[in-house]
Amino acid sequence: MTQDTSSTILPSYVLDDSVPAYRAIQGFVLEMIQGPDYGPGDRIPSERALAEQLGKNRMTVRKAIDGLVAQGLLERNSTSGTRIPMPRVMRPIDARTSLGITRIIQSGGSVAGNKLLHFEQTRASTQVAEHLQIKEGSEIVMFRRLWTVNDTPCCIETSHIPLDLVPGLAAEDLMAGQSLYGLLRERYGIGTVTGERQISVAAGSQMETRLLGLPPGSACLLLRLEVCDERGRPIEYMRSVNHPGLVMFKTSKAEMTG
Amino acid sequence: MTQDTSSTILPSYVLDDSVPAYRAIQGFVLEMIQGPDYGPGDRIPSERALAEQLGKNRMTVRKAIDGLVAQGLLERNSTSGTRIPMPRVMRPIDARTSLGITRIIQSGGSVAGNKLLHFEQTRASTQVAEHLQIKEGSEIVMFRRLWTVNDTPCCIETSHIPLDLVPGLAAEDLMAGQSLYGLLRERYGIGTVTGERQISVAAGSQMETRLLGLPPGSACLLLRLEVCDERGRPIEYMRSVNHPGLVMFKTSKAEMTG
Repeated sequence: MTQDTSSTILPSYVLDDSVPAYRAIQGFVLEMIQGPDYGPGDRIPSERALAEQLGKNRMTVRKAIDGLVAQGLLERNSTSGTRIPMPRVMRPIDARTSLGITRIIQSGGSVAGNKLLHFEQTRASTQVAEHLQIKEGSEIVMFRRLWTVNDTPCCIETSHIPLDLVPGLAAEDLMAGQSLYGLLRERYGIGTVTGERQISVAAGSQMETRLLGLPPGSACLLLRLEVCDERGRPIEYMRSVNHPGLVMFKTSKAEMTG
Repeated sequence: MTQDTSSTILPSYVLDDSVPAYRAIQGFVLEMIQGPDYGPGDRIPSERALAEQLGKNRMTVRKAIDGLVAQGLLERNSTSGTRIPMPRVMRPIDARTSLGITRIIQSGGSVAGNKLLHFEQTRASTQVAEHLQIKEGSEIVMFRRLWTVNDTPCCIETSHIPLDLVPGLAAEDLMAGQSLYGLLRERYGIGTVTGERQISVAAGSQMETRLLGLPPGSACLLLRLEVCDERGRPIEYMRSVNHPGLVMFKTSKAEMTG
């Protein structure tokens, strides 16, 4: 077996005999995939290459990788090698289309679920009023839905809509994960709607992290939307808190300038 | 002064006499703006409204807000009220255009700076080779640049390009924050390029968080790009690690469906 590691600086624990060899290899691989060169979906070097690089037995490398696969930290595919798993929900944020989250999850081959957490008629706070360009204290409908991918919570979306745009809107209308925009179109005659999206990192609130199964204060992928009707009138202000390990946003191919 | 707080549940510390009143108000406002209803750019209630809601003197409320403004946690504007500051860099991720980061920062009225941190000819790792659709171990150029907004580090971008596409590319070519795509176009005749972008939350590496002035392990806003030339040949794989408090991505108005 090749023991030539001259081109690699190995961390000391890989050479430390007091640590079981497969554990040391796991430490090395974890450090590698959490480093700046690797990201979701990336393939890691083959077991043969790792065995050579680390000067370890190939069966031991296999045992180490098996352990990481069992923990869900890697995925093994017979034809395309061992990879870092992709997030389970890839949300397109193209300028042209924006599918509802149910269809996005389903098109990724997973099972989408949802739950209406909250529905109320309330009054607009200072900041909600500003997003909706209505007077502070105006009546609005506020509702919050939780989305799951294969029964794991991945996203909490909170919508605010001026009440006068959606008279008679009730919790039942939103309980089965119905498309809000479909409902606006079909029942309220609010046609093509457009939105400007902002994506950032934000600490989830205590309620949000608890519902997403994350430690308190965890950073989440935040999406904020202001949706307008075809005449430019604001119809919805929405905040979407996404699980950082399960959700990723992506654009389609775009021209690069600058 | 109105003391009607019947519609608000006040946290106990607002009523606790052992805490200076302005401190208690600051605690209340901080909890409010860090909660799920508020986000960057949002306006908070007026000092008069807060004084009424909390049953406190308006001068004390002003002192509390002054303190938060001095800490940079709020911004006061004589015409549009007091707001949560916006991130200083709003990066458009439209499907049509994507400006270089220098121009994005400048168009926001800030001063852009940059520093070439690293430049080398090296060999493609397994995963870089896969992104660039070249053989593992092929020669590539790898470089890393740090971007600043008003002298504060906001973004670290690491590019990988097959060496045979950019013969003679040297560190000097990239030291003044030059546009890579301009260089590809003008010197190498690589025309219109398109890229697919992925946006996620990821823990920065130790080096990255240190350079961005963040605590180790901080969650950053990660952008990954695969750029192709007009014939679809991959020409660059890029990883961009963005400061979570200074950078936000945004789309222009897009049609909402689903």
